[in-house]
Amino acid sequence: MIKIYDLATKYPDVRFSPFVWRIKYALAHKGLEWEEAPLHFTEMSRLPDPNVGLVPVLVDGSTVVHDSWSIAEYLDEAYPERPLFKSAEAKAQCLLFKHWSERVWHPLVSKIGIMDFYDAQRDADKTYFRESREKRFQMTLEEWGGNSSEAREQLLKILEPVRQVIASFDFLGGDTPSFSDYIALGVMQWIRCGSGVEMFDKEDPINDYQNRLLDLYDGLGRRGGRIGDH
Amino acid sequence: MIKIYDLATKYPDVRFSPFVWRIKYALAHKGLEWEEAPLHFTEMSRLPDPNVGLVPVLVDGSTVVHDSWSIAEYLDEAYPERPLFKSAEAKAQCLLFKHWSERVWHPLVSKIGIMDFYDAQRDADKTYFRESREKRFQMTLEEWGGNSSEAREQLLKILEPVRQVIASFDFLGGDTPSFSDYIALGVMQWIRCGSGVEMFDKEDPINDYQNRLLDLYDGLGRRGGRIGDH
Repeated sequence: MIKIYDLATKYPDVRFSPFVWRIKYALAHKGLEWEEAPLHFTEMSRLPDPNVGLVPVLVDGSTVVHDSWSIAEYLDEAYPERPLFKSAEAKAQCLLFKHWSERVWHPLVSKIGIMDFYDAQRDADKTYFRESREKRFQMTLEEWGGNSSEAREQLLKILEPVRQVIASFDFLGGDTPSFSDYIALGVMQWIRCGSGVEMFDKEDPINDYQNRLLDLYDGLGRRGGRIGDH
Repeated sequence: MIKIYDLATKYPDVRFSPFVWRIKYALAHKGLEWEEAPLHFTEMSRLPDPNVGLVPVLVDGSTVVHDSWSIAEYLDEAYPERPLFKSAEAKAQCLLFKHWSERVWHPLVSKIGIMDFYDAQRDADKTYFRESREKRFQMTLEEWGGNSSEAREQLLKILEPVRQVIASFDFLGGDTPSFSDYIALGVMQWIRCGSGVEMFDKEDPINDYQNRLLDLYDGLGRRGGRIGDH
């Protein structure tokens, strides 16, 4: 069975890596089963070789694939039915959404949730989490997350193009979900599972969109535990 | 023959409306011919009914279509060969790019080029241009365009997701150009034809991408005159 290395938290049922959530949805999209191997931040040396210290890693028989985009490409090659990318055009457009998401949407979620993401670590992982993030942000976690209400406001604004699409379509993929939708779901799960923040107001169409994504594949996204429930 | 109402400038050969450029490329994509009816800002009362005062307007026999997105949809309905949108997915993803472009890319181009766009108007149109824009921006044209080097820096940064796609693909549409590419070309032509600014450094991959777009359809984009050449 396909094995996915995931990011663990101090709660056995809570996983919040946006990159791993994309892949769980991609596997469900294809009707594939998988088992999960959750690792804490300080356990990444246990990842299979070649080990770059990051999840997700997919192991399928003797094949080891790193990086969520490469894993999506691998899945379409190895399991061509129900493609994640139906054409070169769909793939190019999804790549655009991926890079936009990671450059614009991800940093805002990181700012909004950072202290919750920190608190979700075991004590043994907190030092690593703080040091690695503070080095990357060039400031303390507290400074990075210091104005989370402004970050949330900004996030709700930068999502306006997504809002415009789902005014006409059920999914970014049109009538059916595509890998772009799973990228969106991944960022949503990061904050939804990893923090106590309710990101969207009930009247926001993005909230309905999030619910549609959570409902997919027998409620796959809802089966993940949430920090807020602990 | 299809008629397209375009935005005129004081130079008969220079047209810089980003929304009209999209449609010229869409028509060329389908191998359709068209004639152009350029109107100055103060001549918009001459647009066909129902007149919303904005170009492009397409007239095809007895059909009048406003708004570049609606025109693209009309073209795919009336001339289904060589579709602009190959699937609901492609359309949804293009709609995302359209809204992102118009909310993020367009305002920066407007800031960078505003005084050139103003200077490109006939004296008779300058008053309208200034008043309408200053009302919209809630500041003077000079204030709006006051920090164009910062706006250019920001623009080069927000285009990073586009840069990432064209590192792997010739076009946003993958191997062949799509309506997303024509949206991109439209914003590029706005500043390229309507101002003396060279937006991209020669080493920037976006510059190569712009050249690929300009080369399409026998150099359609290069046949438009440029303010800088006057």
